[in-house]
Amino acid sequence: MASRKKHSGKRASRPAKRVFFFGGGSAEGDASMRNLLGGKGANLAEMAGLGLPVPPGFTISTEVCTAYDATTERYPKGLAEEVASHLARLEKVMDKKFGDAADPLLVSVRSGARASMPGMMDTVLNLGLNDDTVKGLAAAAGSERFAWDSYRRFIQMYGDVVMDLKPASAKEADPFEALIDKQKERAGVSQDTDLSTSDLKQLVGKFKALIRKRCKRPFPTDPMEQLWGAIGAVFRSWTNERAVVYRKLNDIPVSWGTAVNVQAMVFGNLGDSSATGVAFTRDPSTGEKRFFGEFLVNAQGEDVVAGIRTPQQITLAASKAWAKENGVSESRRRKDFPSLEEVMPECYRQLINVSHKLERHYRDMQDLEFTIERDRLWMLQTRNGKRSAQAAIRIAVEMVDERLIKTTEAVLRLEPAQIDQLLHPMIDPRAAKQSVARGLGASPGAACGEIVFSAEDAVAAKAAGKQVLLVRYETSPEDITGMVAAEGILTARGGRTSHAAVVARGMGTCCVVGCESLVIDYSSDSMKVGEHVLHRGDWITIDGGSGDVFVGKVPTVEAKVSAEFARLMVWADKARRLKVRANADTPHDSKVARGFGAEGIGLCRTEHMFFEGERIDAMREMILATDLRGREKALKKLLPFQRRDFRGIFKAMDGLPVTIRLLDPPLHEFLPHSSAEYEALAAKSGLDLAKLQAAGEALHEFNPMLGHRGCRLAITYPEIYTMQTQAIIEAALQAAAAGVKVYPEIMIPLVGTASELERLRAAVKETAERVFARKGRRIAYQIGTMIEVPRAALTAGEIAAHADFFSFGTNDLTQMGFGLSRDDSGRFLPAYVDSGILAEDPFASLDTEGIGQLMEIAAEKGRAVKKKLKLGICGEHGGDPSSIEFCHRLGLDYVSCSPYRVPIARLAAAHSALKAKKG
Amino acid sequence: MASRKKHSGKRASRPAKRVFFFGGGSAEGDASMRNLLGGKGANLAEMAGLGLPVPPGFTISTEVCTAYDATTERYPKGLAEEVASHLARLEKVMDKKFGDAADPLLVSVRSGARASMPGMMDTVLNLGLNDDTVKGLAAAAGSERFAWDSYRRFIQMYGDVVMDLKPASAKEADPFEALIDKQKERAGVSQDTDLSTSDLKQLVGKFKALIRKRCKRPFPTDPMEQLWGAIGAVFRSWTNERAVVYRKLNDIPVSWGTAVNVQAMVFGNLGDSSATGVAFTRDPSTGEKRFFGEFLVNAQGEDVVAGIRTPQQITLAASKAWAKENGVSESRRRKDFPSLEEVMPECYRQLINVSHKLERHYRDMQDLEFTIERDRLWMLQTRNGKRSAQAAIRIAVEMVDERLIKTTEAVLRLEPAQIDQLLHPMIDPRAAKQSVARGLGASPGAACGEIVFSAEDAVAAKAAGKQVLLVRYETSPEDITGMVAAEGILTARGGRTSHAAVVARGMGTCCVVGCESLVIDYSSDSMKVGEHVLHRGDWITIDGGSGDVFVGKVPTVEAKVSAEFARLMVWADKARRLKVRANADTPHDSKVARGFGAEGIGLCRTEHMFFEGERIDAMREMILATDLRGREKALKKLLPFQRRDFRGIFKAMDGLPVTIRLLDPPLHEFLPHSSAEYEALAAKSGLDLAKLQAAGEALHEFNPMLGHRGCRLAITYPEIYTMQTQAIIEAALQAAAAGVKVYPEIMIPLVGTASELERLRAAVKETAERVFARKGRRIAYQIGTMIEVPRAALTAGEIAAHADFFSFGTNDLTQMGFGLSRDDSGRFLPAYVDSGILAEDPFASLDTEGIGQLMEIAAEKGRAVKKKLKLGICGEHGGDPSSIEFCHRLGLDYVSCSPYRVPIARLAAAHSALKAKKG
Repeated sequence: MASRKKHSGKRASRPAKRVFFFGGGSAEGDASMRNLLGGKGANLAEMAGLGLPVPPGFTISTEVCTAYDATTERYPKGLAEEVASHLARLEKVMDKKFGDAADPLLVSVRSGARASMPGMMDTVLNLGLNDDTVKGLAAAAGSERFAWDSYRRFIQMYGDVVMDLKPASAKEADPFEALIDKQKERAGVSQDTDLSTSDLKQLVGKFKALIRKRCKRPFPTDPMEQLWGAIGAVFRSWTNERAVVYRKLNDIPVSWGTAVNVQAMVFGNLGDSSATGVAFTRDPSTGEKRFFGEFLVNAQGEDVVAGIRTPQQITLAASKAWAKENGVSESRRRKDFPSLEEVMPECYRQLINVSHKLERHYRDMQDLEFTIERDRLWMLQTRNGKRSAQAAIRIAVEMVDERLIKTTEAVLRLEPAQIDQLLHPMIDPRAAKQSVARGLGASPGAACGEIVFSAEDAVAAKAAGKQVLLVRYETSPEDITGMVAAEGILTARGGRTSHAAVVARGMGTCCVVGCESLVIDYSSDSMKVGEHVLHRGDWITIDGGSGDVFVGKVPTVEAKVSAEFARLMVWADKARRLKVRANADTPHDSKVARGFGAEGIGLCRTEHMFFEGERIDAMREMILATDLRGREKALKKLLPFQRRDFRGIFKAMDGLPVTIRLLDPPLHEFLPHSSAEYEALAAKSGLDLAKLQAAGEALHEFNPMLGHRGCRLAITYPEIYTMQTQAIIEAALQAAAAGVKVYPEIMIPLVGTASELERLRAAVKETAERVFARKGRRIAYQIGTMIEVPRAALTAGEIAAHADFFSFGTNDLTQMGFGLSRDDSGRFLPAYVDSGILAEDPFASLDTEGIGQLMEIAAEKGRAVKKKLKLGICGEHGGDPSSIEFCHRLGLDYVSCSPYRVPIARLAAAHSALKAKKG
Repeated sequence: MASRKKHSGKRASRPAKRVFFFGGGSAEGDASMRNLLGGKGANLAEMAGLGLPVPPGFTISTEVCTAYDATTERYPKGLAEEVASHLARLEKVMDKKFGDAADPLLVSVRSGARASMPGMMDTVLNLGLNDDTVKGLAAAAGSERFAWDSYRRFIQMYGDVVMDLKPASAKEADPFEALIDKQKERAGVSQDTDLSTSDLKQLVGKFKALIRKRCKRPFPTDPMEQLWGAIGAVFRSWTNERAVVYRKLNDIPVSWGTAVNVQAMVFGNLGDSSATGVAFTRDPSTGEKRFFGEFLVNAQGEDVVAGIRTPQQITLAASKAWAKENGVSESRRRKDFPSLEEVMPECYRQLINVSHKLERHYRDMQDLEFTIERDRLWMLQTRNGKRSAQAAIRIAVEMVDERLIKTTEAVLRLEPAQIDQLLHPMIDPRAAKQSVARGLGASPGAACGEIVFSAEDAVAAKAAGKQVLLVRYETSPEDITGMVAAEGILTARGGRTSHAAVVARGMGTCCVVGCESLVIDYSSDSMKVGEHVLHRGDWITIDGGSGDVFVGKVPTVEAKVSAEFARLMVWADKARRLKVRANADTPHDSKVARGFGAEGIGLCRTEHMFFEGERIDAMREMILATDLRGREKALKKLLPFQRRDFRGIFKAMDGLPVTIRLLDPPLHEFLPHSSAEYEALAAKSGLDLAKLQAAGEALHEFNPMLGHRGCRLAITYPEIYTMQTQAIIEAALQAAAAGVKVYPEIMIPLVGTASELERLRAAVKETAERVFARKGRRIAYQIGTMIEVPRAALTAGEIAAHADFFSFGTNDLTQMGFGLSRDDSGRFLPAYVDSGILAEDPFASLDTEGIGQLMEIAAEKGRAVKKKLKLGICGEHGGDPSSIEFCHRLGLDYVSCSPYRVPIARLAAAHSALKAKKG
């Protein structure tokens, strides 16, 4: 393999240090040597270097891994000597000998790559035990049972991890566990912990026999052989199947390699002066600055998390609060659940000191693991602690106040995606609940309501004061009123950019889509999900984040936005270069967006204005008209509605730009979908039913996505855009006359050729000039285009000549560039993502490798022709943090997203700018 | 304007010759000076330079046009003097004076740009006449009426063309014609020619009065003023609206400018010793080498084409043949329709000499215009004559034999598109017929038959010995058997790349699609087209070239391929670099393709194999199966069919490569389309109807073009490609065992990401290896991919790593890159082409500006990674000459098209190579 050769070559030219010691008050490495020592090794070295009580040990570097030949099991020359000398140093520091029958040094062996890689080799603990040293351990620990239990655990782990003794088939149980079960049966006990020393001794014998039989070689008794066996297993695990798949998915090069950490064992289960615990330097759910943690006396690490015993609180204050909350009397608390502060005051003091030191050192809230072995504190791990969004904000802001970090760092501490949970009600995390189905979480938050299966029912039930949840196979623009009325929306089909998803996100309504296991029967107003049959009026709850569906009412908690959040966002706004606009179609949405900090409207979809009441009637009249005169007559009816909407939006966005996209969807979207609806329309309009249906049929398209829509409508029916332009300009003049500062930007959708835009720009200008002339006043406005057709991106130079701005419509650009219909991709896209063909759903996160190239080409060609060309993005990706980062790198002027994602986008834009500065 | 300035600058640095004389046995210019003199001027100079009797004159160069300022009407300094001196020379040559009241020199003034530009300024004839000179003309011509008729024509033309006197509104008739009509009324005559000299004199007066009134200035009487007026009008016409639009459509830069030709008038209507005629040096419909032409005595040029008088033949032989054919006795022929050879033997001899000279000079068949003025022959025009395809081939081949041209020139003489008419039966050009509707000509040829409205009826009627024409709204793969049975196919919907069009072209069956005026009523087996109601069994005829639909049986003529054609194609094959393959799905089509010279199969669509009899049943069983086992069982049934088809194709293409595309269309294409069909399927299969329909409904897609198809099917159902690969490899082994040389190329469709291809390539290889192992033999084969998704083109470098070849699927690449569904574009694409937004239908001719960029990117990136990557095109564009030229420039290895277009592609490939060599 080329990479290995290259690596060896490099190695030869520098001092061949391959093993790094840590512990005993110093370390040969530090946190900056992550590439060489792996994450774990570097971190242990860092802690040791700080003088913290870390169980000493040494790290064999990642370069050994890349030089190691798994086939011949050959190590670089001299490694054995280097390991030996470091082991000797370890023995010296620990004052114990490896393999000493009287008081043996035991070690753990762990892998540790540059990046965290779950699914790599497991840990081997207690290495160094054999039939001789087990006795020394028993003597030193003062417990024979402890020693033999440690021994049998070691053999079991070693057999599994190093000697690769696995169940022979998928049906076979773990063979070690099977032997334990048999032993327990024989002993007549039910818990492992009830096995006697003699039982454990028998098990050790049986384990060794099993290994000899299945592995064709004996369990190694020589501690050095054990050690090298474990080291080799770690290196080999770097190229095992799981690791290869994981690396591929996460784009980790094989050349990185893994390090091996050999570390002295410490035990928290050596009696009542021993303990083990975990702690956070601040409260991970609220962010409050108070030490927070739990421990168990005479226990091993896994016991704390296993939840078999009730852990005790570390601080006295927390212990008292816990007792109060759980109705435990102070006397019982002191007896059964005393705090560490009370039972091991010295270790407690030491732990608090260490925690301060670590927090100051890492300048972030730490998640600590510790063990106390016979009154001696050992730090096993420290890392930046996971925290809730609320906590992340509070910690970041308070650390700025404490002068621990700068405001820019505080901004970077909050993941943009985390904000989502702050802005929407959530399922109460403490509520008992069971998910009965899972779809795609399409619009965050939680919602519960009585099921309705149609928009009409939703509107009626809402009017009757009910709280409803709209359930549909999919939604269409006709369902808008029902969607507005509903607390949440659940669909059986469609992806994250389906109609339901897009509209719901725009409204901030909780929504789950593509819940494939849902079978709806509209005729009986019922649905089946798993074994549950639910009817109209039954309650369900949905989680728009996880996509979960629950039967019944599950309690939710309201969203809260704190003062700290506001401060953090001010810092974020200062840091970013990208402007953030919102996609909003109504005055109300515009106000909401502005409240969230939107700096303009990046996409106002005019078609959504056509679905209510009289408007849809006029729209249909226009579509079904057979000549220009008929269309113009119908459009005249629509004009006042549009004008009023635009005026409201301009007012809401006083002083900010508003990009209005002219009519985009194919006309058949405005026609009825069922014969019943056609009959209703015929009755209402007095038109012939057969003719109506024929007209609808004539508009049918095989691939409406690629059909007669967008600016193509305006090429064949110019009067539509004429009406819309007139409405925009008149509204702008009215608003301006009322003292509003208006910046209208008229956007032509689906442009594929420069001549389309050239022609339509001229038409828009002509209409605008006519209005100006009639009103005797004028305002400034811009005309631009969506870049959403691949060909438009490729010929952006020609198109730019006729555009004041480009707005990337990345939904359609992805659909066309990828040849992927977002409404149909549900049948195969999940398989693509699951199997790693695609790293991510390209509708959720921009495909920078492919679709991104089209954006680059368009930005480059467009700006080459027009240096000041304004560039933005108004696809769904405008609210996705990693896509926003790409937009920043591309030098766009703004991103536009749904109102509820504006804060996320603001933060993501800040992250992008700060990361770019860092390089 | 920048271009004008630049031009003046250039002009200044070279001798300022701006006016070029021709005639009188010599010329200052020649044919090579087209850019400076325009096409007409250069050609007149060339003829004059050859010593041919061209009416002398001079050309004012195109540089004057670009220097002329239309606003101030200013000419370059010195031009007036130069024109004056050339006019003097003209007077000298003609021995007449311009403006001489006794015997005036009259001239014509015409525009003439580098490229032919219909829609520019019209001609002004008889310039130089006024109230004085008209008398001189009368005296010289010996006819007062002739002189005054010439005068009134001149004023009329000058008023219209130079003084811009047009009808005041669209409703007003031409004001000059209105005066003529009034005059005729007053004189009580019906023909212009019946107007007396006195009538004409009155008209002249009225014309002049009209001009004074409407133009606010008098008609100029000074010949020099007339001349400069006409020159200025020509120059101004270069920037008039019609010219601007025309230039834009044809990509002609404004900087080219037009020249002005001033030429002495000659008259063919000065009595019986004068005549005018047109002639071809060879027969333009057969190509036979015989002089062919017609003339009229005492007539003007337009009289010959106007068809009011029956023209006479030029040669005696032709005259006799004409008389025989038209039942005219020899005595009557000699009296009323004698040949030129008989009536003006000297002029005839001279004309024949001139024609030989011109043909030898231009080395091509010439189309001549001549006038004889009082026994003196004048050549007015010569140009390469238009000809039928048959004639083009014969002329080119015979000219090679005559050593007039080289074989490569002969190849270039035949336009590839012309071949089409040679390979298909045509509507008899002499048949009486009236088109009742027009659709898009989608597959050439002519066909007539009894109407049937379903595939079943087509098959049944054909079996009953009837000749049928299948009429449908659109066709689907289910209609294949009916399409095979039909003589021709007519659809009301769809474009040139709709299913009907693609399949029909593949089969060489005549087809008209998108005939929007057709209203079909399947339930009554009838259709309405215009006022005609036609029923099943009624005859219609369609022209797949023009798209015309005729009621009844219109006679057709069979196609003939000549020996000359075969010779020409040998020369073409020698000249080309691009290989030409065919798109063929069956052994039969493969044989046809090979017969047309295909050098392999570029696209074998396997899905077409699944529609007949048992196959479709098994296919549906596969689609409706609910688990892997069920799908595999059904696929097993399909295997032998596929294997047999492939074996047949390999045999037919012995020694040539065969590219087989694995399953591409979405599965629902194989399911029934109507409830009746579902019922039949349920009855046949014994499956539950409701379940069947639900399964079909579940497969419904909003945009099937962008849905679950192509390699996406194989990602979710790998067993499909496994079966197909097995069938291909087994068939190849069987064929190879029978001594056939097989070169299978397995093609994966709709790849959008490298990992799709990587995965499927591995799966195909694995299957192939399994077959090889089982059979104990192996063959070489390749695995490649379609490049049809824009993203695939953009990431072609990554994809190339897993591909042996790329085949551009330009149909889908155009659909996705342009965002245009070919099946839906009929509603707006015609408007796009008509209005000039698109120069051409991008499905007929490759959009090199946009989609071509994707191909360039893919070719470049692919070859950068894999130098020997084989590149081809298998979209419909593979048979389009201009697209083939683009493919040649792009350096593709081959083009692939439907069998019947293979000869066109071969010729187009030769043209591309020869043009590229020329530079």
